[in-house]
Amino acid sequence: MTEHTTPLETLLAYHDAWSRGDFDAAMRYVADDLVCDAPAGRLVGADAFRAFMGPFAAMLTRYERLAAFGDDRVAVVVYDTDTRAVDGAPAAEVVTVADGRLRTMRIIFDRLPFEEARRAAAGAAAPR
Amino acid sequence: MTEHTTPLETLLAYHDAWSRGDFDAAMRYVADDLVCDAPAGRLVGADAFRAFMGPFAAMLTRYERLAAFGDDRVAVVVYDTDTRAVDGAPAAEVVTVADGRLRTMRIIFDRLPFEEARRAAAGAAAPR
Repeated sequence: MTEHTTPLETLLAYHDAWSRGDFDAAMRYVADDLVCDAPAGRLVGADAFRAFMGPFAAMLTRYERLAAFGDDRVAVVVYDTDTRAVDGAPAAEVVTVADGRLRTMRIIFDRLPFEEARRAAAGAAAPR
Repeated sequence: MTEHTTPLETLLAYHDAWSRGDFDAAMRYVADDLVCDAPAGRLVGADAFRAFMGPFAAMLTRYERLAAFGDDRVAVVVYDTDTRAVDGAPAAEVVTVADGRLRTMRIIFDRLPFEEARRAAAGAAAPR
């Protein structure tokens, strides 16, 4: 990891790491003061981000990159996933990078199937 | 609209039209046989796409482009919206284009706040 990588190179290095199951390696591309705007609200700091993204990455069974672009300021990746919770859950991320680490992230995905999976699991665990 | 526009030019022309309230103009950039993979499933054909996207566009009160990129094969746009239903609903689209019209689209957004708005409206309309 040099200081002269592009935002897209940093974003894809982060993705390559977590999608192959090495979330600790992925976190090396995340700034300590990352600000992540996720569907449920804003997450501030690497610890909050790890608590959000780590459990998702741990459930991953398929990762497919659909598009990836960037310039000297911003990078975008769109990808599809299967997890043990939900099949076919695509997401998009727009990031900015400082010193080879993700500094801001806007992540977009559909929470509805994850909510439904959670409700189904809760319903299976406790009779209604 | 010429046959020599890039996928990104076509995608942004479509966005410029619907985001200024001219959905009929936007549909001129949509192929009759568009295949759109949306969170709720696959939509086939311009009529199905209009029924999906038209009502959303008609509710729009704010549109902000967050990122837009493309090459000779594919284009991506990430944007944020406010509508009369939901404030702060970002979305991402990955498209391919043929003959100056959108041919395939993968659109990603969070359905959950729209579901919640629908439930709140239904709850307000009919006592439970």
